[in-house]
Amino acid sequence: MAQSNLDLDSQSERFQRGWEQLQAIDGEAGEQVIEGLSEIAPDLARYVIEFPFGDIYARPGLDLKSREIATVAALTALGNARPQLKVHIQAALNVGCTREEIVEVVMQMAVYAGFPAALNGISAVKEVCE
Amino acid sequence: MAQSNLDLDSQSERFQRGWEQLQAIDGEAGEQVIEGLSEIAPDLARYVIEFPFGDIYARPGLDLKSREIATVAALTALGNARPQLKVHIQAALNVGCTREEIVEVVMQMAVYAGFPAALNGISAVKEVCE
Amino acid sequence: MAQSNLDLDSQSERFQRGWEQLQAIDGEAGEQVIEGLSEIAPDLARYVIEFPFGDIYARPGLDLKSREIATVAALTALGNARPQLKVHIQAALNVGCTREEIVEVVMQMAVYAGFPAALNGISAVKEVCE
Amino acid sequence: MAQSNLDLDSQSERFQRGWEQLQAIDGEAGEQVIEGLSEIAPDLARYVIEFPFGDIYARPGLDLKSREIATVAALTALGNARPQLKVHIQAALNVGCTREEIVEVVMQMAVYAGFPAALNGISAVKEVCE
Amino acid sequence: MAQSNLDLDSQSERFQRGWEQLQAIDGEAGEQVIEGLSEIAPDLARYVIEFPFGDIYARPGLDLKSREIATVAALTALGNARPQLKVHIQAALNVGCTREEIVEVVMQMAVYAGFPAALNGISAVKEVCE
Amino acid sequence: MAQSNLDLDSQSERFQRGWEQLQAIDGEAGEQVIEGLSEIAPDLARYVIEFPFGDIYARPGLDLKSREIATVAALTALGNARPQLKVHIQAALNVGCTREEIVEVVMQMAVYAGFPAALNGISAVKEVCE
Repeated sequence: MAQSNLDLDSQSERFQRGWEQLQAIDGEAGEQVIEGLSEIAPDLARYVIEFPFGDIYARPGLDLKSREIATVAALTALGNARPQLKVHIQAALNVGCTREEIVEVVMQMAVYAGFPAALNGISAVKEVCE
Repeated sequence: MAQSNLDLDSQSERFQRGWEQLQAIDGEAGEQVIEGLSEIAPDLARYVIEFPFGDIYARPGLDLKSREIATVAALTALGNARPQLKVHIQAALNVGCTREEIVEVVMQMAVYAGFPAALNGISAVKEVCE
Repeated sequence: MAQSNLDLDSQSERFQRGWEQLQAIDGEAGEQVIEGLSEIAPDLARYVIEFPFGDIYARPGLDLKSREIATVAALTALGNARPQLKVHIQAALNVGCTREEIVEVVMQMAVYAGFPAALNGISAVKEVCE
Repeated sequence: MAQSNLDLDSQSERFQRGWEQLQAIDGEAGEQVIEGLSEIAPDLARYVIEFPFGDIYARPGLDLKSREIATVAALTALGNARPQLKVHIQAALNVGCTREEIVEVVMQMAVYAGFPAALNGISAVKEVCE
Repeated sequence: MAQSNLDLDSQSERFQRGWEQLQAIDGEAGEQVIEGLSEIAPDLARYVIEFPFGDIYARPGLDLKSREIATVAALTALGNARPQLKVHIQAALNVGCTREEIVEVVMQMAVYAGFPAALNGISAVKEVCE
Repeated sequence: MAQSNLDLDSQSERFQRGWEQLQAIDGEAGEQVIEGLSEIAPDLARYVIEFPFGDIYARPGLDLKSREIATVAALTALGNARPQLKVHIQAALNVGCTREEIVEVVMQMAVYAGFPAALNGISAVKEVCE
């Protein structure tokens, strides 16, 4: 996406860092999320880049693989955010998780959020991997 | 806890493996959970040992540190299971996560489940660490 | 509770039916809920009597025991309404469920909402039965 | 929809008030919800008209614009009721909210329910406005 | 499904009991769930058979009709597991619930989880019954 | 709270704006939240100030009264963040909502998240107003 769609004010260091993180972690799927917001809610696009990616994922205290394990676990457990779960299953693969590890994380959610959550999570893994 | 409180039938290999995992991972807090069930729902105690610990945590495909990161993330995001969240914050420490890593996982949940979930998660970390 | 605390308009047939159902099903705990609302939100007290009890629980298509099983299951699974779960564990006992049946319903929720939901539900059963 | 599909008993003042509110607030989308229930659960159709619309939305203590802001916020945060969220985004427009105000409400939910909830809410706004 | 797709180790008594329960309760829909997992997460398929069906549904303390009422109630209330809700609406019919009883259970969830949950539950009942 | 507890880097314009908003909206309760984080997760304290308050609440597109109505509605509906709900009930009063309006918002949640959510919300209003 042309960054020029976004407000010039936002071209801060924080925004730049977030944009690079988003591309490195989420890849094309992340860019599409931003693209989809640019018309109707461009500031939300900017916040997605700045806070989750510019602030949180850029922090040194936890490796990216562990961060994506945490996110896949949480989104599987919540069970109401399938598009974002799929983006983060791909992101987990992008930062070095194997498909097997992702399946383990999703299966484990049967314990904490019930079997339906785990089954729907596995179906998301399947869609991403096909 | 004396294992003898539990039904003899359950003394299977799966149960033994689960019991050892539960002690190694959750420590005393896990044993108290089992103890608390022994009067009113002893079979649920047995299932807790057999399925989450005997089946899931004993699986080779994901290291215990990653498993606890996944669990802390999910329970923070769900936000309705504080006693279990506290048990697993302790468990995460037991299997080698640092307090800093746990704080990172909980903070990251602000992105996926909102700031209240993250704030209440941090307050649980605080209670466990004090 | 003196019904006179509540708006005279509400003394409809529907309200009367609801009030009788609430007393029969929830007993004293139900009356306390209504009492607690009478100062700050008396109309919510009236709606609780009219809609859940005057409309829903009074319907002929399902016996009260099945209705309470459904409610205990749902509140255990949601995991964020402990006071109401306790009222309905008592209500289930009032309409003829045994403690064993209630424990079965709550345990089954481990499958659909995860073990923490079931464990917290069992702890609510314990508090009610003590 | 011909009101005659619904049980004659229900033609109370409360029902009439609810039916008018539902048409004024939700418009055609609301009527379709009622229509869709008329075969399988006509009494639920009646309750939808009577309780949310005849009782709640007809209350004087809060203006309709604020009521729809509250509903859009709650349904965005819950994240598991997309059809109803879309009906209420349209309803919010019907009672005088601008698209910009609705986008603000939905974006704000990133703070309280996480970014996935806000992103899925914005996608619902998009679908309604197209 | 040919059981041979599944790990030989799993051909335990518990697995056999679960497999028979799953076929009797969920019928073809249940088998399809297992089939769908056999490639990507065969162990989750095995756990579904062993724990919910081999352990929980096989327990004597509650009749199957009550178990399915509990499950339909919980999945309607949670509102984030539509495929599993549909499987269990069919299962409820399979074990002797009438369509009318299922509609009552789902409608009652308006009280405990809100009208959107009940409306989406009714729409699932409709899809199953058509 | 002495701002000096927080990292100097964070003394940006965005932080200053957020800090002023937080004090104006949440008052003392907001400061206590920040205070409580300063030891264990000072960066989460900074993010709370910067993103919800510096970014979101400072936006011009929606008045503060509407913003607090949205937040009270969402937190009542979610039902798993009572401390934050209480902070925002107070915040709603601070920005000009009457107690009656807040009660209306909370009561309306009975429609969208069920009666238990509304009852627990009213109990939070009661605690704040006493």
